[in-house]
Amino acid sequence: MPTVKVYYFQVKAAGESIRLLLAYGGQEFEDIRVAREDWPELKPSMPFGQMPVLEIDGKKYAQTIAIARYLGRKYGLVGKDIEEDFQIDQIIEFFNDIRIKAASVFYETDENMKAKKQEENEKNHYPVMLKKLDEIITKNKGHMALGKLTWADFVFAGMYDAFKFLLKISDLDEKYPSFKKLQEKVLSIPKVKAYCDEAPKSDF
Amino acid sequence: MPTVKVYYFQVKAAGESIRLLLAYGGQEFEDIRVAREDWPELKPSMPFGQMPVLEIDGKKYAQTIAIARYLGRKYGLVGKDIEEDFQIDQIIEFFNDIRIKAASVFYETDENMKAKKQEENEKNHYPVMLKKLDEIITKNKGHMALGKLTWADFVFAGMYDAFKFLLKISDLDEKYPSFKKLQEKVLSIPKVKAYCDEAPKSDF
Repeated sequence: MPTVKVYYFQVKAAGESIRLLLAYGGQEFEDIRVAREDWPELKPSMPFGQMPVLEIDGKKYAQTIAIARYLGRKYGLVGKDIEEDFQIDQIIEFFNDIRIKAASVFYETDENMKAKKQEENEKNHYPVMLKKLDEIITKNKGHMALGKLTWADFVFAGMYDAFKFLLKISDLDEKYPSFKKLQEKVLSIPKVKAYCDEAPKSDF
Repeated sequence: MPTVKVYYFQVKAAGESIRLLLAYGGQEFEDIRVAREDWPELKPSMPFGQMPVLEIDGKKYAQTIAIARYLGRKYGLVGKDIEEDFQIDQIIEFFNDIRIKAASVFYETDENMKAKKQEENEKNHYPVMLKKLDEIITKNKGHMALGKLTWADFVFAGMYDAFKFLLKISDLDEKYPSFKKLQEKVLSIPKVKAYCDEAPKSDF
């Protein structure tokens, strides 16, 4: 078995889908959770100066979604052809669109502007986008695509707590029940659950 | 041959890589360039209320990068295994990171904040990120990945004019010569060139 390490901060957020996929694949890995104060020293050693980074036998893999797709293909969590794989990629990119909208509020430093952007998102973007995502998951029998378990479900499940934190919509679980259910479905897969039970806890 | 349509605005930007890939694949397509004033009427008929959209025999494909990857796999513009495909996906995601940084300035409506963000990007983000991208392209013999032509090169080539417009760095071509060279390499592929020669012109 190769020597695998995951480098990420002490949260779930963008790193968790990689951890969950490795757990699903039965791959043991060193779960390196970097404290904020240690990051500046480590940063130059990472391919794009960012985390998460997956390291396999000393070789570093960067970029969250690229890593998740790679592990998904490795563990057979993909479609049967390029048409089906497209369905996965399409919904992943749409999910990213929502995250980018939310992140642009989160990283806004001006408090007035932040409030304005949040209001704009809540009024004009989130309702349409989240309803669409909910419809797609429901249509796919509780999955992101293809009506079955794919690596896209791991991306969603790993990021959902951070997604909620970013969106700041208090009744997200209740309003779009397919979201929480999808996360729970992935987290209840025995190998995934075993990992989560042992892993350090964080809110998002 | 299937009936193929591309729906996008009257610019290159996010739609052009799809047009270039279809041209490369020898796929005839209806190049539907939607005027801004016609978009609201068309919007509800698009999968996520966005363009570009690729339509093949009536079936709609959305999300730029997902479509580009799909066409890339269709036309053999990929790696030989999941390791190599990962290299393509990784650089695509990094290129997106830079575009997102630039877009957050572009869509900023407050002029003060816009200037501040541009300054912050020019000082702390663009130099490091663009140098990295330039190094990667140079290391890959003038390509985005794998030292050979892949669909990532089409994404870069199609978006580069819009990328320059977004970044607002006047000497980008001169400062990072690998960028312009890569675009020219793709646009000089005979079938691609034939398409571009006939296509409507736009600045970005």
